[in-house]
Amino acid sequence: MIQEVRERPLLMRELLGESLRELRTSESLTLREVSGRARVSLGYLSEIERGQKEASSELLNAICGALDVPLSALLRRVSDKIDAHAGVTQLPLRSPRVAAA
Amino acid sequence: MIQEVRERPLLMRELLGESLRELRTSESLTLREVSGRARVSLGYLSEIERGQKEASSELLNAICGALDVPLSALLRRVSDKIDAHAGVTQLPLRSPRVAAA
Repeated sequence: MIQEVRERPLLMRELLGESLRELRTSESLTLREVSGRARVSLGYLSEIERGQKEASSELLNAICGALDVPLSALLRRVSDKIDAHAGVTQLPLRSPRVAAA
Repeated sequence: MIQEVRERPLLMRELLGESLRELRTSESLTLREVSGRARVSLGYLSEIERGQKEASSELLNAICGALDVPLSALLRRVSDKIDAHAGVTQLPLRSPRVAAA
């Protein structure tokens, strides 16, 4: 989870990158393996996972293929993350902050 | 709906553009109004709607703000479109083709 408190809006590329990394590690795949399968450089894939680069639609398809995850499932995951973050920021101001476990 | 029969994979920017156009027209907003609110050129917004340009994450936030649609809702809409298209392409090969109304 991206845990820092933000004033600026969440960016899709950050939550997309986070999702891609989670999906890759849950399959015990290395950056090298996925970059090879998706035919994208390891450095670029790493930047995408860190939310530093936007992935083109073609590249997203290639990475999803490499992870064997439907693009629609990836987007739902990102969508859920956005809602989860929105839920956090919509907490009443006076409620105690709960530290992440 | 993007109705042509495709061999190549669906691209997110195409379904994203289609979704943005649907959301804009459902609110009876013009390209000019949304481009003004989102501070993006009318031509660029039009290219995004037609799936010809990728929108950066920052621009997506701006367009969603202009349309008053949460980014998560937009992504769910895109995700649903992908699944709907996948359902079409997964029809058995022998089934008769049904012309779009």
